[in-house]
Amino acid sequence: QGAETQGLDSKMFELKDRMRQVVSDVISAQDSSSNVIEAKTKQLVSFYTELETENRLEFLSILGEDFGVNHKNILHLSQSFKSAQERGQNVLLNIEDRLRQSLIPKYQVLFKQIGHLEGGVKFLVDIRADILNLISSQGPGHYNPHLRTLSNSLKELISVWFSVGLVHLQRVTWQSSCDMLQKISDYEAVHPIRNWADLKRRVGPYRRCFVFTHNSMPLEPVVVLHTALTSDISDSIQSIVRETGSDNKTIADTEDTSKITTAVFYSITSTQKGLQGVDLGNYLIKRVVRELLAEYPRNLTKFSSLSPIPGFRDWLITEINKHLHHNPCQEEVFTEEEIKSIMSNLPLTDQLPLEAIKKVLLDNSWAVSEALRTILEGPLMRLCAKYLYIEKHRGYALNPVAHFHLRNGAVMWRLNWKADVSPRGLSSSCGIMVNYRYFLSDTEQNSKNYMERQHIEGSAQVRDLIQQFRPPIEHKSQL
Amino acid sequence: QGAETQGLDSKMFELKDRMRQVVSDVISAQDSSSNVIEAKTKQLVSFYTELETENRLEFLSILGEDFGVNHKNILHLSQSFKSAQERGQNVLLNIEDRLRQSLIPKYQVLFKQIGHLEGGVKFLVDIRADILNLISSQGPGHYNPHLRTLSNSLKELISVWFSVGLVHLQRVTWQSSCDMLQKISDYEAVHPIRNWADLKRRVGPYRRCFVFTHNSMPLEPVVVLHTALTSDISDSIQSIVRETGSDNKTIADTEDTSKITTAVFYSITSTQKGLQGVDLGNYLIKRVVRELLAEYPRNLTKFSSLSPIPGFRDWLITEINKHLHHNPCQEEVFTEEEIKSIMSNLPLTDQLPLEAIKKVLLDNSWAVSEALRTILEGPLMRLCAKYLYIEKHRGYALNPVAHFHLRNGAVMWRLNWKADVSPRGLSSSCGIMVNYRYFLSDTEQNSKNYMERQHIEGSAQVRDLIQQFRPPIEHKSQL
Amino acid sequence: QGAETQGLDSKMFELKDRMRQVVSDVISAQDSSSNVIEAKTKQLVSFYTELETENRLEFLSILGEDFGVNHKNILHLSQSFKSAQERGQNVLLNIEDRLRQSLIPKYQVLFKQIGHLEGGVKFLVDIRADILNLISSQGPGHYNPHLRTLSNSLKELISVWFSVGLVHLQRVTWQSSCDMLQKISDYEAVHPIRNWADLKRRVGPYRRCFVFTHNSMPLEPVVVLHTALTSDISDSIQSIVRETGSDNKTIADTEDTSKITTAVFYSITSTQKGLQGVDLGNYLIKRVVRELLAEYPRNLTKFSSLSPIPGFRDWLITEINKHLHHNPCQEEVFTEEEIKSIMSNLPLTDQLPLEAIKKVLLDNSWAVSEALRTILEGPLMRLCAKYLYIEKHRGYALNPVAHFHLRNGAVMWRLNWKADVSPRGLSSSCGIMVNYRYFLSDTEQNSKNYMERQHIEGSAQVRDLIQQFRPPIEHKSQL
Amino acid sequence: QGAETQGLDSKMFELKDRMRQVVSDVISAQDSSSNVIEAKTKQLVSFYTELETENRLEFLSILGEDFGVNHKNILHLSQSFKSAQERGQNVLLNIEDRLRQSLIPKYQVLFKQIGHLEGGVKFLVDIRADILNLISSQGPGHYNPHLRTLSNSLKELISVWFSVGLVHLQRVTWQSSCDMLQKISDYEAVHPIRNWADLKRRVGPYRRCFVFTHNSMPLEPVVVLHTALTSDISDSIQSIVRETGSDNKTIADTEDTSKITTAVFYSITSTQKGLQGVDLGNYLIKRVVRELLAEYPRNLTKFSSLSPIPGFRDWLITEINKHLHHNPCQEEVFTEEEIKSIMSNLPLTDQLPLEAIKKVLLDNSWAVSEALRTILEGPLMRLCAKYLYIEKHRGYALNPVAHFHLRNGAVMWRLNWKADVSPRGLSSSCGIMVNYRYFLSDTEQNSKNYMERQHIEGSAQVRDLIQQFRPPIEHKSQL
Repeated sequence: QGAETQGLDSKMFELKDRMRQVVSDVISAQDSSSNVIEAKTKQLVSFYTELETENRLEFLSILGEDFGVNHKNILHLSQSFKSAQERGQNVLLNIEDRLRQSLIPKYQVLFKQIGHLEGGVKFLVDIRADILNLISSQGPGHYNPHLRTLSNSLKELISVWFSVGLVHLQRVTWQSSCDMLQKISDYEAVHPIRNWADLKRRVGPYRRCFVFTHNSMPLEPVVVLHTALTSDISDSIQSIVRETGSDNKTIADTEDTSKITTAVFYSITSTQKGLQGVDLGNYLIKRVVRELLAEYPRNLTKFSSLSPIPGFRDWLITEINKHLHHNPCQEEVFTEEEIKSIMSNLPLTDQLPLEAIKKVLLDNSWAVSEALRTILEGPLMRLCAKYLYIEKHRGYALNPVAHFHLRNGAVMWRLNWKADVSPRGLSSSCGIMVNYRYFLSDTEQNSKNYMERQHIEGSAQVRDLIQQFRPPIEHKSQL
Repeated sequence: QGAETQGLDSKMFELKDRMRQVVSDVISAQDSSSNVIEAKTKQLVSFYTELETENRLEFLSILGEDFGVNHKNILHLSQSFKSAQERGQNVLLNIEDRLRQSLIPKYQVLFKQIGHLEGGVKFLVDIRADILNLISSQGPGHYNPHLRTLSNSLKELISVWFSVGLVHLQRVTWQSSCDMLQKISDYEAVHPIRNWADLKRRVGPYRRCFVFTHNSMPLEPVVVLHTALTSDISDSIQSIVRETGSDNKTIADTEDTSKITTAVFYSITSTQKGLQGVDLGNYLIKRVVRELLAEYPRNLTKFSSLSPIPGFRDWLITEINKHLHHNPCQEEVFTEEEIKSIMSNLPLTDQLPLEAIKKVLLDNSWAVSEALRTILEGPLMRLCAKYLYIEKHRGYALNPVAHFHLRNGAVMWRLNWKADVSPRGLSSSCGIMVNYRYFLSDTEQNSKNYMERQHIEGSAQVRDLIQQFRPPIEHKSQL
Repeated sequence: QGAETQGLDSKMFELKDRMRQVVSDVISAQDSSSNVIEAKTKQLVSFYTELETENRLEFLSILGEDFGVNHKNILHLSQSFKSAQERGQNVLLNIEDRLRQSLIPKYQVLFKQIGHLEGGVKFLVDIRADILNLISSQGPGHYNPHLRTLSNSLKELISVWFSVGLVHLQRVTWQSSCDMLQKISDYEAVHPIRNWADLKRRVGPYRRCFVFTHNSMPLEPVVVLHTALTSDISDSIQSIVRETGSDNKTIADTEDTSKITTAVFYSITSTQKGLQGVDLGNYLIKRVVRELLAEYPRNLTKFSSLSPIPGFRDWLITEINKHLHHNPCQEEVFTEEEIKSIMSNLPLTDQLPLEAIKKVLLDNSWAVSEALRTILEGPLMRLCAKYLYIEKHRGYALNPVAHFHLRNGAVMWRLNWKADVSPRGLSSSCGIMVNYRYFLSDTEQNSKNYMERQHIEGSAQVRDLIQQFRPPIEHKSQL
Repeated sequence: QGAETQGLDSKMFELKDRMRQVVSDVISAQDSSSNVIEAKTKQLVSFYTELETENRLEFLSILGEDFGVNHKNILHLSQSFKSAQERGQNVLLNIEDRLRQSLIPKYQVLFKQIGHLEGGVKFLVDIRADILNLISSQGPGHYNPHLRTLSNSLKELISVWFSVGLVHLQRVTWQSSCDMLQKISDYEAVHPIRNWADLKRRVGPYRRCFVFTHNSMPLEPVVVLHTALTSDISDSIQSIVRETGSDNKTIADTEDTSKITTAVFYSITSTQKGLQGVDLGNYLIKRVVRELLAEYPRNLTKFSSLSPIPGFRDWLITEINKHLHHNPCQEEVFTEEEIKSIMSNLPLTDQLPLEAIKKVLLDNSWAVSEALRTILEGPLMRLCAKYLYIEKHRGYALNPVAHFHLRNGAVMWRLNWKADVSPRGLSSSCGIMVNYRYFLSDTEQNSKNYMERQHIEGSAQVRDLIQQFRPPIEHKSQL
């Protein structure tokens, strides 16, 4: 057994040595001709590509630890900084420059060289996805701190490459390549695409599917935005992504432009995990609005999302649990009357009322009872408004979709009951969806207010729902 | 008069205030929505575009001085660095990260935002050209040191954007756009294009014109490489860029591929001053070699440049001058016999022989005398070899064209007498041109030898020419 | 009742009047401006498009009868022809010209005008398909003779438009438009495409799918040719169009070019009935051979089809029926030994042996019995060879696929047992398929021999199979 | 000498034999495989291409005479026509079909085969140009009548290929290929292009240059239309095609769309002589109007040509000559007062006044004298109106440009004095140009009126000019 372990250890030892070697080869080739560098860099790329997942962690750790910065050098320059400062601007700028150079990790050179390869940018985006996966698999507080530095270093570079000027807007239609359409279909996570007929509809009349692609990976839809062109702001996803049936034949081949007054963004997807933190979705929405206005300069006046509310039911169950565990600060979730009313529509049970309610919420069985649907509409809409409007994370909306649209300058415009009655929709948000509406002339100010003062612009409907909470609640939320 | 100056002063004062304001507007918009940032950034771009040249210097100085780094902050972090280091890796990485952030000039944010605009990258390339022009107009040692930092900061960003993966190879033919061909014509500085018939020939049969374009400026040829396909390594530019006359009609419309064995790179031009230091020419040559090999996989086996030798005559005159001024270390330029022989072919004069020779070299009159041409061939070829092979700058070839090709791994292969007999060719290099030849299997090693050991690989011809100098000369050059 | 009929009659009467009017409108507009003509022509196109199928017949009959030629005029010119001939060449050419003009049906003008419209050529191709459908639905000898003239007139025009110079070769891959790929899938009748994974394989590595498109209908694949790149001439369609299963993963993403020596054309489809008689398939094969040779100039040396044998089983059943009905001239289908052998593997029955054999051939049940498969291989292969090689229609091969390839210059190279074991394959040709092989240097001569002398070039295998028939048989076939 | 002639004769004899052979080869290959036909057809094409001009006439004569129709066959069918007619519709249609077939010249088969080749359509267009040149070089009444039949046969085919659906509209800009722009420049005969700067302007802002291309010759602009976008209907070509000078810099890079209310077609050119009689110019104008309306849906409301009046001065000189030769029917050209007034501004002379006037008209010297210009404006404008409006050829406007636009439905809108003061403009039309204006809603009716009733729609200005002629004149013109 010992021998075997030793064998493994020595194998691992060799592998680590090889890793260091492959990286050194690129870094030490820096001053020689581009041919040499390119060859060495390609070697490294294929070396990494063939590594197994667990060894990739090893590789990335070595990269972070052994090819980061020279701490001594930094210490030395830091200590001479003060005296340098006193010797005039030239000296000061010079030492700052040296300090800046010394703080650039050695692997940054590597990343730049990889970026020079064909397909290199895509490779780096994928590496960053690997790093982010490793970080989240190790859990907060437990991950190797070098990974964070690596990730930041990569994000820095990637965000330069993904400047909007280098990103291309492309409309996807049935005339687009099968390859592209298959990817659109595979990536669609919000409202999964059932089959090719469904897909054809989503790129057909009364629909617009736009993507951003990047030169370094021209066949890859980096962000995807699905839009429906309608005569009013949709309050249900099923009206947009309908089952294809016999009534399907009635869908016109051409659009009656006089009926198109509204653009409803019903799905937006970022496909590259490695682009986390590089905000392209916002730009995509803006570009699409511009395209649509150019296409329909007269009639098209309303812009809104129809968005899911991921996390609402989870949050609601947590609220119920707190109550069940007698958390004293917890205000009540349902009023006594509501509870009574709900219980009268449930089979007799020994459970606590909240336990019983929790159960029907968790198995979606409430949704098949007309009575329960009617009773629950009031409290669930109210609670959902609370979740969206009042719950915060670092001062901003806790719900990430809400945060995205509010930051872009949208208004929280309408909560829609029975808007997504698919099992998926019931399980994530009790079937509720929300419209974030974009009033083009206000987005700038709204965005500013939200980002600088954490102010959420809500419509009358939303404000009314919030009003149902006792003053102290709202007061608390503003602390 | 005082009032007027005061008026000017107050106007300048206002303008400077406005400059600061415009920059602040972008930087302070950082946290708000992208709409706001974009609007402010566009404002800044058009503000700068409309500034007069002298005010641009002012603007760039303000940018460098007032929107660089916070020195105090850096000092503070520097001083806490040592103690941080002792508190473990996490703390160390953290303070390094903060120090790194603090060393990023504020204007870097600005540049990134500009890069996001359509046409933004081109704008930054142009700004860098402005900065480099300012630096060289102020002269070494006298320019504002902030300009250098600005330029480096921009180069950093630009070199990421101009990763080879984002740059496109394009062949230019008579089917290319007039816009592109006009630019090719305008940018051609090495062997100016006389008219559209000349241009048509340079993109026609037996010629290949390739350019790199970049997504951010798709209509702009960033680097241009002209290649002639021949049956042997050309020894004269006139055989490639001939006068179009009646014999012109004999140029075939189609290529006889069996006659094509050699690719002669006879002109390479970088068109964007703002890309100084971002090496694309080397990549372009490599890509073109690959393209040509794909087109002629069998016969095409020889690759060489036919290059000008800018600076040779200037250097030669300087050598003569040193001698005239009795610089003691100066070895002799021409042998006594040579001088005698030359003088016997010049009109009688009171001048010192070297003065008289200098004169005919400067006015190119030697080139119209067959006798002088014959006599001078020996010494000029020898001296030219010395200039190219022995004269150095920081250990590398002084001549920039030589340095470029040697760094790419070429061999200094053949000096060609009467290779460019145009006035331009005589004035810059006494009509001599040089072939740097690329032996594909050796370029990697040659490049390494040159970059690491400053070794220049020369052909027998070159080495023979050099041998004519006394040993001590060569010895000295190796110090 | 009478009134109702009268109502219908008068309605029909009105409709016919309207038809005549619509056509007259175009023809009488001939001399006026193109605007007028275009407007009238568009009117006619939409008028026809909206007609019900039965009324289209009416319309086409009216077109043929009322807008054909002026018979009196022709008679008149015919009668003056003789005397004209005697008055010299000029007069002769003149009257010939007038006769020629008078023989052009009026509707030819109409067709040309339609051809000028956008989408007009496609419309005419569709009209011709309508006419051909009408002719075949009315049956030979019973159709309106004007329809044949109409069809010929259209074919004349269409064949000019579909000159090969105006037809475009396009390779279809997974990067082609979904629209195109869906059509490829829908049109594939030879070996139906099961799903999108199957489709993806047929345009993926080791496969080439080429189509001809025409400018007048750029989104329509007019002819489709599927080719497999293999290491030998395939003897089974299932090896090419395999079920996609777990072993599917082993299909390489890239092609190992060293393994590719053979191109197997395994499906060719003409999609437009209206192009009947306009031979594009032959051109497509030739163009594809050229493309493939350009792609694989060294290794690719073998070209062959793997073709279905539609009609073989039907023919075989007819042969059996003739025997059953004691047709005296009918030679025997199976030998006595064969019949004995087959019967011993069938359940006992009262039926005549040939009836019993016919039954298992018709329900494909023979194919599930290993014994029967073994026994039947000999006779079925022999009979199939007879069907392909000996059965004729107007001197040429009766089987249309055979005729197509033989006319193109192919050799009847190999009959393959168990080559298509799908129900479809069994029902049409008892699972047998055939390779028509193209020896590039011989196709010209083969084609000539076949077209001029009805000679079929067969391989040794085919000739051996044929030899099994008694001399008199072959003798007869050669009469 | 006799021997030499004999030698030539026998050589010509051989050549003619060879011609017949080459044509027979194609025609007799009709029934064999397409490979054979294609090879033979290519042979014929290169044979013809290499013929000298005089031999081409021989070739075309042989083609017409020996490969036309079978006159006996036609005679035979003609004679059986009458009896056939009595034997019912089927027989009638059948014999008509046979007659129709027999009237198709054998060379028609040849032309179709050529059309199948790549570049074949272009070759046929060029052959037709050869034929038309031969016809006009031999003069009316003297040319070989077979050439006319050949030309008609070709025109028939070519007009099918050039159906508008197969022709592509393309806008030419500075981004178009140099090849295309060079051709545009070379073909411009109406207002010759002076240099590349001039060319750049004609495809730049406030200008639109559109061409039709055809698939069979994609690099060839078949028809070219130059349009100026202006704020009013231009009355002078110099305002559109100005000398490029220092004021050139004031031309904006971008268009102020609010100033664009008018599209002035100032040059239209058909580049292919072989397309004579195939009307594409009319279609091009219509398509361009549609494009422009799509680009400027609101402001652009006026459409007009600014057209030259080729032939006006020639016609005027002929009128003067008739008078000088005392043609009794000839009405006077100038009034007595006009003559007096003109003569007082000419140097004293012995010549007859009309002779003297004729002289200054012929050498354009009148145009440099302000006085003469003033005096002549009245009579020349009046005479020009007469030339355009009253002079007819077969009932239609004699002037071909007038005929073209009137047929398209334009109004003869305004004659412009001093509209083209270039030597070319003075020599062809005494500097006068004319606007044919297109009122979009009236073109259909105008065209009909002109084509059916020879009615020319003229503006008030034109009618006023015509009124100056004595009633009898106008009366006569209306007969």
